[in-house]
Amino acid sequence: MSVGEFDLIEKYFAPLASKGPPAFGLQDDAAVLHPPSGQDLVFTKDALVATVHFLESDSPEQVAKKALRVNLSDLASMGAEPVGYLLALALPAHFDAEHRESWVRNFARGLEEDQKEFSISLFGGDTVSTPGPLTVSLTAIGAVEKGRALHRFGAKADDHIFVSGSLGDAALGLAILQGTLQEENAAVRSFLSDRYHLPRPRLKLGRALIGLASAAIDISDGLMADLAHLCEASGVGAQVFDFNLPVSGAAGKVLERLPAYKNRIWSGGDDYELLFTVPAKHVGAVNRLSEEGGLALTEIGQINEDRHIRLLDQNWHAVAGAGEKTGFRHF
Amino acid sequence: MSVGEFDLIEKYFAPLASKGPPAFGLQDDAAVLHPPSGQDLVFTKDALVATVHFLESDSPEQVAKKALRVNLSDLASMGAEPVGYLLALALPAHFDAEHRESWVRNFARGLEEDQKEFSISLFGGDTVSTPGPLTVSLTAIGAVEKGRALHRFGAKADDHIFVSGSLGDAALGLAILQGTLQEENAAVRSFLSDRYHLPRPRLKLGRALIGLASAAIDISDGLMADLAHLCEASGVGAQVFDFNLPVSGAAGKVLERLPAYKNRIWSGGDDYELLFTVPAKHVGAVNRLSEEGGLALTEIGQINEDRHIRLLDQNWHAVAGAGEKTGFRHF
Repeated sequence: MSVGEFDLIEKYFAPLASKGPPAFGLQDDAAVLHPPSGQDLVFTKDALVATVHFLESDSPEQVAKKALRVNLSDLASMGAEPVGYLLALALPAHFDAEHRESWVRNFARGLEEDQKEFSISLFGGDTVSTPGPLTVSLTAIGAVEKGRALHRFGAKADDHIFVSGSLGDAALGLAILQGTLQEENAAVRSFLSDRYHLPRPRLKLGRALIGLASAAIDISDGLMADLAHLCEASGVGAQVFDFNLPVSGAAGKVLERLPAYKNRIWSGGDDYELLFTVPAKHVGAVNRLSEEGGLALTEIGQINEDRHIRLLDQNWHAVAGAGEKTGFRHF
Repeated sequence: MSVGEFDLIEKYFAPLASKGPPAFGLQDDAAVLHPPSGQDLVFTKDALVATVHFLESDSPEQVAKKALRVNLSDLASMGAEPVGYLLALALPAHFDAEHRESWVRNFARGLEEDQKEFSISLFGGDTVSTPGPLTVSLTAIGAVEKGRALHRFGAKADDHIFVSGSLGDAALGLAILQGTLQEENAAVRSFLSDRYHLPRPRLKLGRALIGLASAAIDISDGLMADLAHLCEASGVGAQVFDFNLPVSGAAGKVLERLPAYKNRIWSGGDDYELLFTVPAKHVGAVNRLSEEGGLALTEIGQINEDRHIRLLDQNWHAVAGAGEKTGFRHF
């Protein structure tokens, strides 16, 4: 028996949506949201293509959570709280009916788990067939106190540059999953590949940074590439120090053995950590956030006026190959 | 010289976005919208895949306008006014740099023309590469007076069923473009293929129907399929009469010669007309809308309580092959 689009929606996606507003059980042409009063709404949209943004071996649950979380990470960088999302799913025409249904069932289960984790629901979307690879496009909607959203612009000379968590884990995890990097230690392998599969959108941090950070961005293309985006939007430059960059224990173990992978720390994509700038007067408050919040916030350098973005070593020499264009290239 | 994602965005998409809020020149992780006061926000998302939802021979301008307009048609069916949109564009990896840039330039030109037509702007999005066919996913955002949105549910027994414009034109146009239907008359060919390429979202009508229509839906999957959706959401049935269905002069000419295509009128997709139900007391007002608005609104049947959806001929016999499942099947 062939399960068509409407049956898949009814069976697997409708339970992820509200019966009343905004989603009306996905039985309508569109969702209707009464905006929370005193709040601005925040919108972001990212698309993920199999073989380009995730591995064909990734499970449907992993794809679901990654698609959702990379968008929530954008909301985090704006200081917004997630509200809901719309989803377009293009399923390969070569999936037979059974595979299609089991894929969608597991994909929906991944969404369901993350909906609980992040207190959001599905507002609507579209399910289509494609002769190409599986493609997920997701639009996330968030809310932030009126006029208080964080932006990429706003960084000023002498602001301190911070980054959350640790860098390069996901890029190393991807290399392990692709088999280009061999790692014997199962715990290291598992930590790093999990960091690739399951971004942790820093939503709580983003909200806490409102009033403290002068600019913020989430690191999706790699530290130096996203630092360049922040600096360009702010009309400033930056210097960061390679010895300050936060490296996880697992990544540290890999780099000790394979120092050639060190550039993944500043150029590897998929970190989904927050990179943000803080005026001197708020540095103490940010350090307290770090101590109380259970999430490392590491100062990695300073904003300057000269429009250059430099990664420096301990001798203040530029690190080779760490120019502005070292991040993930979409083409 | 290779033009990368960021350059394409800067060069072709940023000019479609506001420099300040909500889009901040696409220089931010997300858009920030201050919701219009006293309004609900309406969200809809449709994806279009080359070879599935549009022809590979369609021009980038046509694809842009179709992607935008099918979403605006959903807003129309809710009675909403468009505000803005987010766009995810997956470009085939096999496009060389020159083709990619010229495709995006023309695509953006199509968007620009329609932004003027519909007074909207680009809020944000994502441009990625795909090993598969060109894919466009678009999220449209609209606004409607608080609590007044039209829905698919709400139709009641004895309500009159109306449809805007004419039916089946786009399906016949598609058959002509695909070469399965031969049509010598250039004016007929051009009218019908234009109806396929360029949906007219019935936004003005949708807004005018607030307070008059008991339920509404836009016809994308074909009259009978979308009537079934409306009836299912409303918990009712319907009977419509084939001799009442509005047929354009061009479609009439084709059907005279090739009566086998007649089922396209009630089962062909891509009409993007509004199908709506009206309680007896508002039928006069709807007829006046039709006279004054320059858009034909045709009464085609009635809602009933028995949960069956029937297309009847002049002898009240069911039209063969016009069951509920005759519309566009997504799988």
